Amino acid sequence: MGKKVVVTGVPGVGKTTVITGAMDRLAGEGIVYEPINFGTFMFELARKEGMVADRDEMRRLDRDVQKRLQRAAASGIAAISGDANVIIDTHSSVKTPVGYLPGLPEWVLRELMPDVIVLVETDEDQILQRRLGDESRTRDMEGARSIAEHQQFNRAIAAAYAMYTGCTVKIVRNENFLLDRAVEDMVDVLR
Amino acid sequence: MGKKVVVTGVPGVGKTTVITGAMDRLAGEGIVYEPINFGTFMFELARKEGMVADRDEMRRLDRDVQKRLQRAAASGIAAISGDANVIIDTHSSVKTPVGYLPGLPEWVLRELMPDVIVLVETDEDQILQRRLGDESRTRDMEGARSIAEHQQFNRAIAAAYAMYTGCTVKIVRNENFLLDRAVEDMVDVLR
Amino acid sequence: MGKKVVVTGVPGVGKTTVITGAMDRLAGEGIVYEPINFGTFMFELARKEGMVADRDEMRRLDRDVQKRLQRAAASGIAAISGDANVIIDTHSSVKTPVGYLPGLPEWVLRELMPDVIVLVETDEDQILQRRLGDESRTRDMEGARSIAEHQQFNRAIAAAYAMYTGCTVKIVRNENFLLDRAVEDMVDVLR
Repeated sequence: MGKKVVVTGVPGVGKTTVITGAMDRLAGEGIVYEPINFGTFMFELARKEGMVADRDEMRRLDRDVQKRLQRAAASGIAAISGDANVIIDTHSSVKTPVGYLPGLPEWVLRELMPDVIVLVETDEDQILQRRLGDESRTRDMEGARSIAEHQQFNRAIAAAYAMYTGCTVKIVRNENFLLDRAVEDMVDVLR
Repeated sequence: MGKKVVVTGVPGVGKTTVITGAMDRLAGEGIVYEPINFGTFMFELARKEGMVADRDEMRRLDRDVQKRLQRAAASGIAAISGDANVIIDTHSSVKTPVGYLPGLPEWVLRELMPDVIVLVETDEDQILQRRLGDESRTRDMEGARSIAEHQQFNRAIAAAYAMYTGCTVKIVRNENFLLDRAVEDMVDVLR
Repeated sequence: MGKKVVVTGVPGVGKTTVITGAMDRLAGEGIVYEPINFGTFMFELARKEGMVADRDEMRRLDRDVQKRLQRAAASGIAAISGDANVIIDTHSSVKTPVGYLPGLPEWVLRELMPDVIVLVETDEDQILQRRLGDESRTRDMEGARSIAEHQQFNRAIAAAYAMYTGCTVKIVRNENFLLDRAVEDMVDVLR
């Protein structure tokens, strides 16, 4: 039975960099994790079933269909973890026009039952800087206050995830010029 | 199938003003919401069953009876939403002498399954000012710190509501002299 | 049917002092609570079943076994509360190397169904001071920031506990030189 570690963080916090760094370091110790992006996994399921042709169509699916796909994805990932350690790359919550949408609602948690949820965080000013400097992806601009609010909400909902599953919640800080420390903290969780 | 939008906020934040403003504006667009006060709905159920004569008696009901009434109210409101959009006016949590009481415990959420929970918020100093200046209703005085604590708790428990139901959580700020903006934000959620 | 009051607080906040003070005062009024330490209760169950000889072995038990023991402890405490008021001394969350571990996960809450969860809190600086001055037990040192983070997480997860059980969440502040006030607040919850 492998470990199931969920890694989350607001856009621009550097989540992928920290995951990649940690997996590289662990590979040197012979510890292997299979990285799974929750959204991509769900999309592949939907595509195989002929429900969508591209990712944009995912958002237009009926709410009940989305729910069924989320549950199927969670169940599929849990099955993979029977033989392997998995890192699940997803969001604690997603900021939408109608508010914060939970990344791991009850029906996902019930199937997935993660061991750990990691929140990669840093100061809102650093995140804002990174978002403004990053031109590779289009992102809506929001002020530092709104990023702080999002990170606070992510902590609160992660606490609810822990109540429901018994998993631990680990906060890993990814500060400017201190990536090594963030990677080290992540390695400690995964090892 | 109509939308189910729960609107919450601490006493004095101006929740009712924001709801009324948003419903007026939407009526002009032909979008109709039925406003339902959760507490009143529950009281009417209890009165019809001959359990109480006035609202004061509601608090003295046995805990299990209250629970049954809450569940019945949630189920009744969900039934109404089959044909109509509903705004449910209630509290994220209520401050009592023995602590914060959840407005939407598990058995209410399971029946109601809201689409959105709105938290109407503003700075604690503004709320305190409004409470002190409002003589139309008796309110217990509490300092700004205690209001900040209550609003923070309301966010945290709203996150738990989102985990359990998959609903979004939208924070609408209702600042002094900026009511139009709060109404506009609420309209965006309801439209 | 007795009351079930869960009392929590980070190490060094003075939880035990507040509990003892409150129970003494209530004894004078003829109100009796049975104090139960959740961890000790669980350990006694495990020892009776011959699963462990000392408390250190508890941590090395299989995750599923721990879960079963937690559930059995919660169920046993709920049974005691049939005839007596109980104070359950435990943690909202425990800080571990892999993150915050919930003290009352879903399977514990479902059996225990507490009436109130008390969070004994104070400023992080005071807690740090108390930890540094207390040489009777070995504690890992952490800065004030990390204590503030832990207390914030404890509030968030207590909100999730309230959502799931309908219990209230009471924050009791135990400030330096103001123990009497903390005891009085606790007495108000227990009376």
